[in-house]
Amino acid sequence: MSKTIAINAGSSSLKFTLYEMPAEEEIVSGIIERVGLKDSVFTTKYKGEKYKVIEDIKNHEIAIQMVLDKLIELKVIENYEEITGVGHRVVAGGEIFKDSALITDEVIAQIEGLAEFAPLHNPANATGIKAFKKLLPNITSVAVFDTSFHASMPKENYLYSIPMSYYEDFSARKYGAHGTSHKYVSERAAEMLGKPLEDLKLITCHLGNGGSITAVKGGKSVDTSMGFTPLAGITMGTRSGDIDASILPFLMNKLGLTDVNEMIYILNNKSGLLGLSDISSDMRDVEEAAEEAGNEQAQTALDIFYNRVQKYIGQYFALLNGADAIVFTAGIGENSPETRQIIIDGINWFGAEIDEEANKVRGKERIISTSDSKVKVLLIPTDEEIVIARDVERLRK
Amino acid sequence: MSKTIAINAGSSSLKFTLYEMPAEEEIVSGIIERVGLKDSVFTTKYKGEKYKVIEDIKNHEIAIQMVLDKLIELKVIENYEEITGVGHRVVAGGEIFKDSALITDEVIAQIEGLAEFAPLHNPANATGIKAFKKLLPNITSVAVFDTSFHASMPKENYLYSIPMSYYEDFSARKYGAHGTSHKYVSERAAEMLGKPLEDLKLITCHLGNGGSITAVKGGKSVDTSMGFTPLAGITMGTRSGDIDASILPFLMNKLGLTDVNEMIYILNNKSGLLGLSDISSDMRDVEEAAEEAGNEQAQTALDIFYNRVQKYIGQYFALLNGADAIVFTAGIGENSPETRQIIIDGINWFGAEIDEEANKVRGKERIISTSDSKVKVLLIPTDEEIVIARDVERLRK
Repeated sequence: MSKTIAINAGSSSLKFTLYEMPAEEEIVSGIIERVGLKDSVFTTKYKGEKYKVIEDIKNHEIAIQMVLDKLIELKVIENYEEITGVGHRVVAGGEIFKDSALITDEVIAQIEGLAEFAPLHNPANATGIKAFKKLLPNITSVAVFDTSFHASMPKENYLYSIPMSYYEDFSARKYGAHGTSHKYVSERAAEMLGKPLEDLKLITCHLGNGGSITAVKGGKSVDTSMGFTPLAGITMGTRSGDIDASILPFLMNKLGLTDVNEMIYILNNKSGLLGLSDISSDMRDVEEAAEEAGNEQAQTALDIFYNRVQKYIGQYFALLNGADAIVFTAGIGENSPETRQIIIDGINWFGAEIDEEANKVRGKERIISTSDSKVKVLLIPTDEEIVIARDVERLRK
Repeated sequence: MSKTIAINAGSSSLKFTLYEMPAEEEIVSGIIERVGLKDSVFTTKYKGEKYKVIEDIKNHEIAIQMVLDKLIELKVIENYEEITGVGHRVVAGGEIFKDSALITDEVIAQIEGLAEFAPLHNPANATGIKAFKKLLPNITSVAVFDTSFHASMPKENYLYSIPMSYYEDFSARKYGAHGTSHKYVSERAAEMLGKPLEDLKLITCHLGNGGSITAVKGGKSVDTSMGFTPLAGITMGTRSGDIDASILPFLMNKLGLTDVNEMIYILNNKSGLLGLSDISSDMRDVEEAAEEAGNEQAQTALDIFYNRVQKYIGQYFALLNGADAIVFTAGIGENSPETRQIIIDGINWFGAEIDEEANKVRGKERIISTSDSKVKVLLIPTDEEIVIARDVERLRK
């Protein structure tokens, strides 16, 4: 028996989940927001209760200290040493990390060195790792990368059609993201379908504020919709997904921008559902506006979202040359029955048929296709934290 | 009976084909290259003979004059007035031209005004139009736009997931290209299949040095792989097709470029098969290197090309919710049986099966799928010029 904590450190946030392992029992979880700002918010969930503290939390080290002290206060642990392992989510693993890795000074330096692939995330992830290491220097510490599940992609999918030297010299290629989520739901899908993962061809749709779709063959990612960064792929909350690159200089000229990074900022933060609808980046708000207020622009944003997801499912049917199941997960995938129904109904030629009754559910693991649907459709709530905790266990041995 | 000439004017070239209409009989065709440069090359094909002249041709007006004089010399016409109509290919029609248009001074100004959508092409197209108008002011003159066949796309396909105001204020959207080619092969496909075009769902693959794939429903384009410009979509001879936009600032930084237009230039001119293979933008050279020399990098370039085409076919199966036929056309599509075979074999789940014997053909109109193939596969040599000549006839009445 051991206690493992999964950590997801952002630039001004810190999420954690503590597990009893190998039982995979979630004991306590929480989040600290506004780290380094005034009025930081520390929320903990334990045995159905929610605890909330608002005070200034200067940095990640203090935030982690507060988490550990809270665990003692709640009598979850008696002292820090009871925590035997920590897993840190890291966004970009580049071409170095094809699997999770035991953290050493070299690994930390490599994570920091990959900052140009995830300028907002990797430095924050490294900060979390270092802060934890200072407080608990002797426990097993593992980095789990968002990209490493996609390390199995063959080169005809990860290479862009640009000069080969850009790949050879600069590692410019597709990396993808949401790897732990796609991995988790793939494994659960195999269990739910009662078939070996090795024999399955799956299309996993992680539809949240960020969204990506992955083609999974025999448990391995063979292609994914996100690209060099999470900007590419389907329409997201605030991200554009795929666009013609040559629209950048055109828009920069129209908008009077001289730095291409300003344009990329807009494509990452002002686009997607938000930019299309002029209402919100949150699918629920856009759905509400379209349904209740009859807002046509909101409906167009939704139609574009469905359309892009359908087209990616279609391209992965081509890539996999058929598929056994389509999996929906993450915020929208788990909680919007309408989205699942519309997406699958619109491509029923592929042989997937939604069971309307079964589909009337939010956030529960369930097969939502009819019993004679040739292609199965599954709803699987994702759990990226448990994948992190499992990888700590695996590498601790 | 009337004689109609189809003109395709580039910045330093002028292609022409003269037809007897409405018989659609091609009488003579030719090309002038290096217009405005030293040692211009004027080639004419007439009754199976080829005529070649090399001399300095200063501008498009002189080039057109030479074409007309050549027609008299060959006794195709006795005087200029025998030519009753001219059709000019124009690349970008923006949102203004949803169909071909009779040329007026206003239309010429509009074509020039759309130069920002096709900076290399529209000004050259306008030059050709004006030169012809000067020499033959009284004949029916029609502009035929590469984009207008795609004017039927619904907004969920032509809008990018960027702020809606960029579309409303700047017309930033998908326009596509190769419209006359996709239109021509769609119409021929219906005739070959013996079914009304209105009832058909087609995926037309124009695979040349430039390449695009179009989803055609009931004879109308509903989506196409090229985007705001011809840069987007599949891997092309020198164009990258789809990439993650955020790779631009990364590569600009690595390459020491400060102007995003330099990066777009590379993506248009140094990428695609050329950039991937480091050999050639010409599919035949890359195929030869892969097959005869066992060049692995060339094989990778080919694999990526097949992969991108297959993925677009898959996404259009989703968009159309099934398809009746896949059509191959243009340089590679017409002349590479291997390419057609590999692409279709790799996605046989979709129900298309190549007839190996029937597929052993180059540049001939033919059904190349087996008789019991659920989805038909057609080889149709494209003819953009005849579409131009037909539109002249249609608008002349």
